[in-house]
Amino acid sequence: MRSVIPDYLAEALGDVASDTSGELAGYIPELAAADPEHLGAAFATVQGEVYGAGDIDTEFTIQSISKPFAYALALSDRGFAPVLASVGVEPSGEAFNQISLEDGTGRPLNPMINAGAITTHALVGPEGLKPAERVERVTDGLSAFAGRRLRADEAVCASEMEHAHRNLAIAHMLRGHDILTEDPRTVVDGYTRQCSVLVTARDLAMMAATLANRGVNPLTGQRVITEPVARQVLSVMFTCGMYDAAGDWATQVGIPAKSGVAGGLIGALPGQIGIATFSPRLDPHGNSVRGVSLFERFSSDMGLHLMGVPAAARAVVRSNHVVGSGRNALRVLQLQGGIGFAGAERIVREAVDSAFQEVGVAVDLTLVYSIDDVARRMVLEVARRLTLDGHEVHLVDPESLLPDPDPGDGGRVTVVETVAQASASVASIRRP
Amino acid sequence: MRSVIPDYLAEALGDVASDTSGELAGYIPELAAADPEHLGAAFATVQGEVYGAGDIDTEFTIQSISKPFAYALALSDRGFAPVLASVGVEPSGEAFNQISLEDGTGRPLNPMINAGAITTHALVGPEGLKPAERVERVTDGLSAFAGRRLRADEAVCASEMEHAHRNLAIAHMLRGHDILTEDPRTVVDGYTRQCSVLVTARDLAMMAATLANRGVNPLTGQRVITEPVARQVLSVMFTCGMYDAAGDWATQVGIPAKSGVAGGLIGALPGQIGIATFSPRLDPHGNSVRGVSLFERFSSDMGLHLMGVPAAARAVVRSNHVVGSGRNALRVLQLQGGIGFAGAERIVREAVDSAFQEVGVAVDLTLVYSIDDVARRMVLEVARRLTLDGHEVHLVDPESLLPDPDPGDGGRVTVVETVAQASASVASIRRP
Amino acid sequence: MRSVIPDYLAEALGDVASDTSGELAGYIPELAAADPEHLGAAFATVQGEVYGAGDIDTEFTIQSISKPFAYALALSDRGFAPVLASVGVEPSGEAFNQISLEDGTGRPLNPMINAGAITTHALVGPEGLKPAERVERVTDGLSAFAGRRLRADEAVCASEMEHAHRNLAIAHMLRGHDILTEDPRTVVDGYTRQCSVLVTARDLAMMAATLANRGVNPLTGQRVITEPVARQVLSVMFTCGMYDAAGDWATQVGIPAKSGVAGGLIGALPGQIGIATFSPRLDPHGNSVRGVSLFERFSSDMGLHLMGVPAAARAVVRSNHVVGSGRNALRVLQLQGGIGFAGAERIVREAVDSAFQEVGVAVDLTLVYSIDDVARRMVLEVARRLTLDGHEVHLVDPESLLPDPDPGDGGRVTVVETVAQASASVASIRRP
Amino acid sequence: MRSVIPDYLAEALGDVASDTSGELAGYIPELAAADPEHLGAAFATVQGEVYGAGDIDTEFTIQSISKPFAYALALSDRGFAPVLASVGVEPSGEAFNQISLEDGTGRPLNPMINAGAITTHALVGPEGLKPAERVERVTDGLSAFAGRRLRADEAVCASEMEHAHRNLAIAHMLRGHDILTEDPRTVVDGYTRQCSVLVTARDLAMMAATLANRGVNPLTGQRVITEPVARQVLSVMFTCGMYDAAGDWATQVGIPAKSGVAGGLIGALPGQIGIATFSPRLDPHGNSVRGVSLFERFSSDMGLHLMGVPAAARAVVRSNHVVGSGRNALRVLQLQGGIGFAGAERIVREAVDSAFQEVGVAVDLTLVYSIDDVARRMVLEVARRLTLDGHEVHLVDPESLLPDPDPGDGGRVTVVETVAQASASVASIRRP
Repeated sequence: MRSVIPDYLAEALGDVASDTSGELAGYIPELAAADPEHLGAAFATVQGEVYGAGDIDTEFTIQSISKPFAYALALSDRGFAPVLASVGVEPSGEAFNQISLEDGTGRPLNPMINAGAITTHALVGPEGLKPAERVERVTDGLSAFAGRRLRADEAVCASEMEHAHRNLAIAHMLRGHDILTEDPRTVVDGYTRQCSVLVTARDLAMMAATLANRGVNPLTGQRVITEPVARQVLSVMFTCGMYDAAGDWATQVGIPAKSGVAGGLIGALPGQIGIATFSPRLDPHGNSVRGVSLFERFSSDMGLHLMGVPAAARAVVRSNHVVGSGRNALRVLQLQGGIGFAGAERIVREAVDSAFQEVGVAVDLTLVYSIDDVARRMVLEVARRLTLDGHEVHLVDPESLLPDPDPGDGGRVTVVETVAQASASVASIRRP
Repeated sequence: MRSVIPDYLAEALGDVASDTSGELAGYIPELAAADPEHLGAAFATVQGEVYGAGDIDTEFTIQSISKPFAYALALSDRGFAPVLASVGVEPSGEAFNQISLEDGTGRPLNPMINAGAITTHALVGPEGLKPAERVERVTDGLSAFAGRRLRADEAVCASEMEHAHRNLAIAHMLRGHDILTEDPRTVVDGYTRQCSVLVTARDLAMMAATLANRGVNPLTGQRVITEPVARQVLSVMFTCGMYDAAGDWATQVGIPAKSGVAGGLIGALPGQIGIATFSPRLDPHGNSVRGVSLFERFSSDMGLHLMGVPAAARAVVRSNHVVGSGRNALRVLQLQGGIGFAGAERIVREAVDSAFQEVGVAVDLTLVYSIDDVARRMVLEVARRLTLDGHEVHLVDPESLLPDPDPGDGGRVTVVETVAQASASVASIRRP
Repeated sequence: MRSVIPDYLAEALGDVASDTSGELAGYIPELAAADPEHLGAAFATVQGEVYGAGDIDTEFTIQSISKPFAYALALSDRGFAPVLASVGVEPSGEAFNQISLEDGTGRPLNPMINAGAITTHALVGPEGLKPAERVERVTDGLSAFAGRRLRADEAVCASEMEHAHRNLAIAHMLRGHDILTEDPRTVVDGYTRQCSVLVTARDLAMMAATLANRGVNPLTGQRVITEPVARQVLSVMFTCGMYDAAGDWATQVGIPAKSGVAGGLIGALPGQIGIATFSPRLDPHGNSVRGVSLFERFSSDMGLHLMGVPAAARAVVRSNHVVGSGRNALRVLQLQGGIGFAGAERIVREAVDSAFQEVGVAVDLTLVYSIDDVARRMVLEVARRLTLDGHEVHLVDPESLLPDPDPGDGGRVTVVETVAQASASVASIRRP
Repeated sequence: MRSVIPDYLAEALGDVASDTSGELAGYIPELAAADPEHLGAAFATVQGEVYGAGDIDTEFTIQSISKPFAYALALSDRGFAPVLASVGVEPSGEAFNQISLEDGTGRPLNPMINAGAITTHALVGPEGLKPAERVERVTDGLSAFAGRRLRADEAVCASEMEHAHRNLAIAHMLRGHDILTEDPRTVVDGYTRQCSVLVTARDLAMMAATLANRGVNPLTGQRVITEPVARQVLSVMFTCGMYDAAGDWATQVGIPAKSGVAGGLIGALPGQIGIATFSPRLDPHGNSVRGVSLFERFSSDMGLHLMGVPAAARAVVRSNHVVGSGRNALRVLQLQGGIGFAGAERIVREAVDSAFQEVGVAVDLTLVYSIDDVARRMVLEVARRLTLDGHEVHLVDPESLLPDPDPGDGGRVTVVETVAQASASVASIRRP
């Protein structure tokens, strides 16, 4: 039953694999030497399930994807007021390498641009923390988001420090405005170390899922940040996460997101899912080419758009009960609402977790008003697996939401208009 | 039972009423002559319920709040491609009176600034429509969103045309870039007429609810726009709707919104609710002072933030069943999930719609993981009304989500840890 | 004697004639239909001499070259304070089609951009002038600068009004800021008429010479504007006249200048000369391609750079006297200072005006510290003509400012180190 | 005779002394501790005369006034092409603390902003020079401009380095764009040392006079830079020297200029004069308050505006001859042209240098068309001194350029209309 989503992901990866456009980040040798063919995608639900395909266990440096998480840690460690006093939340409408300081104050416009991220790094941990302790706090925090112990890539870190001219410029500028109060080089060193932490697509999906899950890591159950902090971080990712193409991303993809120059890209949909992709070639905005394509597809295929009416994940299975008794007993899964990825995933798990005694099983779509492409496939896969397990599967589908349903390879499904018809149909089966 | 939300709204209005800061829009005499003390707020759910307090039936001109709706109509009438070719979706990071045309092409950055809105107006209806017919189409469209026939205020319209220097400038500029292809004065005239349409806070709440309800007017059931159009409009409202304070609004309030200089302010939360406030004094950004305060409060009190985990409106009542029988029968309302405003509103209506036969009623919070302030009040109000109707109300609240519950005036509630305890408690009641 | 400068100009035109790069202004048919091969250049000295080569009597529309002159008229008619209150004097650092209004006030940054020029047009003549009277005042004023009656090209004017979208936009914007207080369309109509006035390169050279001559037309002797107005206009031309390449022009050419889209280009060097060129093909900045080349050459060949030490035009001939007597009489032209174009022109005229009785003539360069290329040619031409008139010409040149002097065709010159040597040389001549 | 100009300067200083507005540069303690009352002004002519009043021998740090001179040295040492490839010549239209790098290339817009000045410092001396050698070359160069050996203020230098956050930021940014290729901190250290060189107002006037004198120090006669370099530097000072008020300065004052935060301000008028003022309180642009007032006055009183028709300094004395003989001999100083400061200064010196034998002296203004206020005083002072020396002074002034001339204290002058009248007048004098 678990294979539906991985199959879908593998198919999506296959579709984008041929796109070799874009360039590796070339400003330091270590990044330029990456294998450009790496490709992976992972989903992590807020219940802690992880699905993936491709290179989801390959380590690469987190880079700018560390920004929202370090911002979350700073908000947690210092509180909202001092962080907002030092870093704004306004979109910059500018490319990632712009400085974008507020006139007069020198306050960086938001924490997703480098000026804001350098300032944010200096705000992690309590005041007065030594630089090395702060790096430790950042690494611990990122590890808590990921649910496993992370470590930095020392070679990348050293190499980036040698080419950190621009970040040093920014840090000196911030020091000149008293936004930073420490030695600029030390802060840039710590920030570079933060960006050099090694992660996998699996880690990133779980980190994003922690944001989507109101700050609680779905795997470890640890509350990493509070719900207001998670909300703040997701808001800023939505309006400022994708640099100067923020509006295009917000309308077309509609998922709070953040990319890194090593090829990672994450998205988080509150209450639903964390997503991560990995493919190192970048477009001129500095975002992973294939990663952007995959997110566009995920948003479209799975109805994950933030402005879509949220598929009510927990309640898509309105009831799970039995009508009739004995040989005529019919197990009824009554679904409801708009069924997107998260909802379908619930259905799959409800069917998997139960071991239905009844021969007849009806999936009742009467109260369903919409169903996405991926969810459709998942429902049919449920039907197929139930058939293979010996059940007679009926689809109660009065509005033909699933026209000509074909569960494929060994599956069989009978379409009816009411649960009563399903009962009658089951009752008519001759059994030895 | 209906009074809880109006009471809450009235209380909120009372709290902001003393704030007389801000100024009336002064650029035309008609707006400057408005009564600055008007104050109203209305909620419209995606099920079509409207709640309100204060001046919710006073008419005023829609002004810039017409922008997202005209954008929706243009997308509907022309399709996405031609509209996107003429108007972008990027935040401008600028004040509302900036021109913000894209370098080179002259394309307005987004449909929420005047340049974009003027262009959008010219894209409503099929190509080749005469100016008067287009105004008719716009008025019809706005009326469909509101669910009643709207009309323009001719005096305001005429007065605004006399002071439309800036909009005429913008229109001529757009004409120079061939973004507009018609006579600039005619387009500005039509756009001014669009802005002069008279609405009430009640209308605006319903218009916003139509966006929140995937394009279907919850009251009339009419599909005004498609779901993708609604999604696009909400996305653009979120990133571009509140001018140069977009980031503050996105993080603190987190509701796609739009304001107008006559004092209106709307917000729409997908799948949940449309909100409108009316108070004519404006802050320096051009947004209603009290309106902004009210939205900040609504967001905070009711968990309406877009990045909050969505309260699964349709399914907060997991089941509504009876355990036991005869005199021991206990009506159980089993709630689940995070309960926000929309969810609580469902509970109220479930309780109101039913006329429970059983004396014992248990509200079971075992599967609830969070409950907002407003929802808490609404649950207690349900308990109070049920007490007054002769029921014995039990709250199954093992995690003390409602500590020391006090339903007030005539209400009574017994807190237990399990449904079984509630059953036992009910069974023990001595009745004549 | 007069032919030296025309010959130089013809040679310069010949050198740039082969450059056919650039494009005709294409935004209205009348300009696009111009003959792109037109080429002319004219000099007018502050003494009223005009030298020219090529198409210097072909009429074309003055376009933006009218801007500095209309600015001069506005300053004359209204005084400095009201004009400066409406139009600034700061470089915009922007292309000619930018709006560049000052934040807040809407005041155009300078009178050389369209916004400033439209505002300036409305400030010509006394307050309360009717639009047609103002156009008459502008035409009269331009005519006074040129020294002949000018008239507008009605076809170009009508055609430009049809394409005046951008200027209408600007005028409406200015009206919105109350920088303009009249009907925007009427002002743009008058401004377009101003730009349609027909001039020749000869006219433009004289107009520029009037600015260079402290506001007095060197030909007619009419004081068109006061000296402070001329100074103001030249200052603004220097810093704002060549749009976004102002710095390049200021350093490389160093002449206050203004160009027009019909192919005209003028320069004025205070106290010395007015220059005009005509060649219709434009570079991307909107400046005449060959015109820019010609100015670069003039500046370099003739030492016309404003930051060059000014050649003291009136006094380059320190004395004109005779030493010795009878047959030994030697006419001595004692020159001094840095000799540039204007100074050399004085020498030529001093030699032409006088009819020297003495056979021996000495041109004494002892007190000269520099001499430009063009001046060098002119001095040698003086020597050639004096030889042809029967004089024995000596060049007193102890520092070899004119090494190996060759006056050419029929000329002869003897180089000596002192006037005494020249006297001795003359005395030794055997004559019948 | 020398006292006229110092008296004028003393009077001008007296007029501005009461203006105590503005603030000392406060960013480093050494500058904040300066005596705010210092006030001085000095003129240096291109002939090497220095006139001054007030604190013209007090040392202070040169600061940004070093920029044009270091630019001159870079152009000299490297040639135009490599310097222009690294630093532009366009006005920035921005405040002095803006970064103003060209989009894409990172090239500073001009050498007068800090980014350009830091880059320029690194271009002084041949390629490959060690940092300490470069500082030595800069100090030598500045000393050559001043005509005496200068040295740095080590305390100010050390203190500025401690507060050089912004310059370090800029240098790192330039390093990131490969505009700088050396260690950013080392370059900023050298640049700070350049800014810490101690000068007096007298030095600065001589440095400016060297620029005005085509690159030759008028005092030492040393050619410090070539004429094209002087022209380039003066051009850039004119368009970029006074930061964001460039246009106001260019129109109102009209003198290429540069200011420094220690209170110095210089101006240079090609072929005429170098000017320096010293007063430490600064306006919000960072320019000396009293310095700006003094320059406005000098420009107005002395006709020093670059767009004024240049007073032909070398030739204002058209002839100096004697008419008549014996007791009737009359010494005639025939003046001509427009007489400004520089011309008047020539007259004074002509009168001082000569020891006229004749009793009668006529100053002939017949060929003079204008005379400035300061020049008028100087001519009268000449008359006064001649009277005291026993001469009978006549002013030939047919156009009443000096109405009611009063040479003051002991002076006497007779006004006549022709030289012949002066002769007759002298002949009529009875002498023992």
